[in-house]
Amino acid sequence: MAEEKREDREVKEEDDQVVNPWEVSANGGKIDYDKLIEKFGCQRLDDAIVRRVERLTNRPAHVFLRRGVFFAHRDFNDVLDAYERGEKFYLYTGRGPSSEALHLGHLVPFMFTKYLQEAFKVPLVIQLTDDEKCMWKNLSVEESRRLARENAKDIIACGFDITKTFIFSDFDYVGGDFYRNMVKIQKCVTHNKVVGIFGFTGEDHIGKISFPSIQAAPSFPSSFPHLFSGKDDLRCLIPCAIDQDPYFRMTRDVAPRIGHHKPALLESLFFPALQGETGKMSASDPNSAIYVTDSAKDIKNKINKYAFSGGQDSAEKQRLYGANLEVDIPVKYLNFFLEDDAELDHIRKAYAKGDILTGHVKKRLAEILTGLVERHRRARAAVTEEMVDAFMAVRPLPSMFD
Amino acid sequence: MAEEKREDREVKEEDDQVVNPWEVSANGGKIDYDKLIEKFGCQRLDDAIVRRVERLTNRPAHVFLRRGVFFAHRDFNDVLDAYERGEKFYLYTGRGPSSEALHLGHLVPFMFTKYLQEAFKVPLVIQLTDDEKCMWKNLSVEESRRLARENAKDIIACGFDITKTFIFSDFDYVGGDFYRNMVKIQKCVTHNKVVGIFGFTGEDHIGKISFPSIQAAPSFPSSFPHLFSGKDDLRCLIPCAIDQDPYFRMTRDVAPRIGHHKPALLESLFFPALQGETGKMSASDPNSAIYVTDSAKDIKNKINKYAFSGGQDSAEKQRLYGANLEVDIPVKYLNFFLEDDAELDHIRKAYAKGDILTGHVKKRLAEILTGLVERHRRARAAVTEEMVDAFMAVRPLPSMFD
Repeated sequence: MAEEKREDREVKEEDDQVVNPWEVSANGGKIDYDKLIEKFGCQRLDDAIVRRVERLTNRPAHVFLRRGVFFAHRDFNDVLDAYERGEKFYLYTGRGPSSEALHLGHLVPFMFTKYLQEAFKVPLVIQLTDDEKCMWKNLSVEESRRLARENAKDIIACGFDITKTFIFSDFDYVGGDFYRNMVKIQKCVTHNKVVGIFGFTGEDHIGKISFPSIQAAPSFPSSFPHLFSGKDDLRCLIPCAIDQDPYFRMTRDVAPRIGHHKPALLESLFFPALQGETGKMSASDPNSAIYVTDSAKDIKNKINKYAFSGGQDSAEKQRLYGANLEVDIPVKYLNFFLEDDAELDHIRKAYAKGDILTGHVKKRLAEILTGLVERHRRARAAVTEEMVDAFMAVRPLPSMFD
Repeated sequence: MAEEKREDREVKEEDDQVVNPWEVSANGGKIDYDKLIEKFGCQRLDDAIVRRVERLTNRPAHVFLRRGVFFAHRDFNDVLDAYERGEKFYLYTGRGPSSEALHLGHLVPFMFTKYLQEAFKVPLVIQLTDDEKCMWKNLSVEESRRLARENAKDIIACGFDITKTFIFSDFDYVGGDFYRNMVKIQKCVTHNKVVGIFGFTGEDHIGKISFPSIQAAPSFPSSFPHLFSGKDDLRCLIPCAIDQDPYFRMTRDVAPRIGHHKPALLESLFFPALQGETGKMSASDPNSAIYVTDSAKDIKNKINKYAFSGGQDSAEKQRLYGANLEVDIPVKYLNFFLEDDAELDHIRKAYAKGDILTGHVKKRLAEILTGLVERHRRARAAVTEEMVDAFMAVRPLPSMFD
């Protein structure tokens, strides 16, 4: 309790960076993640935990884990302690379906969650908050539901195991035990509390004010009686970008009051915009991001034209002074998506020293992203309406813990 | 729109009486209903409307209508205009299941709604707001649901036609189109608005703040696709006590913005407490009310001991000065439940003149209420769990407009 209290107080103190589910910005341009960890009151995900995950899962840690893309956590060690004792857990992640096409930043939590599902052999629930998008954006109920279904296809294309995965949209699934949990959660959260955490004003509509209970509910196994009936003690692990932390701070505060474990979190950096690391990519500026619908030519053009370079202005200067990797977007993107550690290390060193030019790095990035996007597009094209129905069917998952 | 705006402004102006869903009180003790009509902006239900109802339904108006128990309305003439053109409507009423046993005041809207259903031959939805009671009272979800089911038995015992009646509890029914309508409603209502109408504070929990959307949703036919699919134009008529008016002022403001008619209202006086007309009966004070579970002896004792009398202190004085019917609770109760107009008229006149004593009036009232309560109890005893399931089943009502 003391931990959670401290966070809320600190969230209210304004500082030079704002990170919440609707806004990510920093005065200096670059998010200070150390400061964010301190402000939110979460823990840094250190090498010891990465090694522990490798030992427990008997496989190398995901690139996103060993390269610090997922860099912070809450109670992850508790989940691993329980796992080591033979207790399973379930994964919960989600997406607000605000746009038709996903960009690379949207794929990050799903790629990582797929790894977690495979490595730990655990069930997964994926919430599509079409109600949230209908409430926050000027979208009709029907358009929000349509986007949820389109986004579900992209999510399924990431390769989730249908025998262990339940995808649901709020507009379709809210009701029954899920709704009853929403009410239990709402009873524990005052208006003052959500104003403190989320900054709502009197002009915000009443749907927004109670929405945090809807994002909280999947953190509790009793919201899914078709999956976890009689397993109220099951722990929940939530992989997400760190801007979602406010929802789950609130959820963790409520959890013991309604008889559940606090959900554990694995929290990622924001995937940077092409123009530079000033926050997360924006679906509303098509030139700030690579989309899964972009062609090879689009990708090449966007990278060449918009990707902020830490290299020097001329080939001559680059050979003399080398590149500043701290601000170089192509290198940052490679850090996410170039799986070969040796190649990445070689590029970083040679680029920093000036042995290779920006053009070389951008070319390699375009190859890698084109491959990634083309694989995704082929996978998505193979997702049928029947598969969407099957993933979204309210059903038991008989082999979810095998 | 102008009408609705005016109401909200006036509700904010504090005066000497408070009438909202959670509080009914007046400084002078007695509610000034004329003032309430003016403040809320509804219309008085006059004799012309009563006669019109009799003509359209081809039967005498219900006692509650011709004696002014239902005394105010909103847009009832519009519903009757449409009915006269051959358009049907549906009825919506409800109950917050906060106590196991209902008192006579609780029966009033149901007795009247049963009459409306029979007279107009229209379908009826009855909302049991178990979620509301769980939110406002210190009741668990499970206890609230149990009370909803117990109360459903009392409601069924009022004699509703199962082929025209759908009873639902929020904890069971919220979801699907109902939930999607909740979100549409929520999007139209700011926090400032509900603070203005209901007086919520920062210490109120977020469930309370969004609850008004849940009581609003049944006013729209699209919340019941199993009943009214493709009938989005169907009008809704809500019989209720006037303390529920704030919910439906809000609902009427929202209705045109989400493509529905404004619901019409028929609004009743409060059923007075035995101790005198200072508001509505309270389930928390067992001696303020006659319960449907009270025995003949209980009823006789409560009336003799607690029913406030407008008669004189002694038989002698009563014969000299007569009774003050304006404050006499036995006469007020007879006004609700003694159906025989001639007998009621006789009692009123004789009692006012001093020809009969308080004891006589109380004795007659005890007979009438004992009969009413015993009939109710027999009817309730005949309500099986299967009947409750049948009334609460999500199903079409094939003969609902016959």
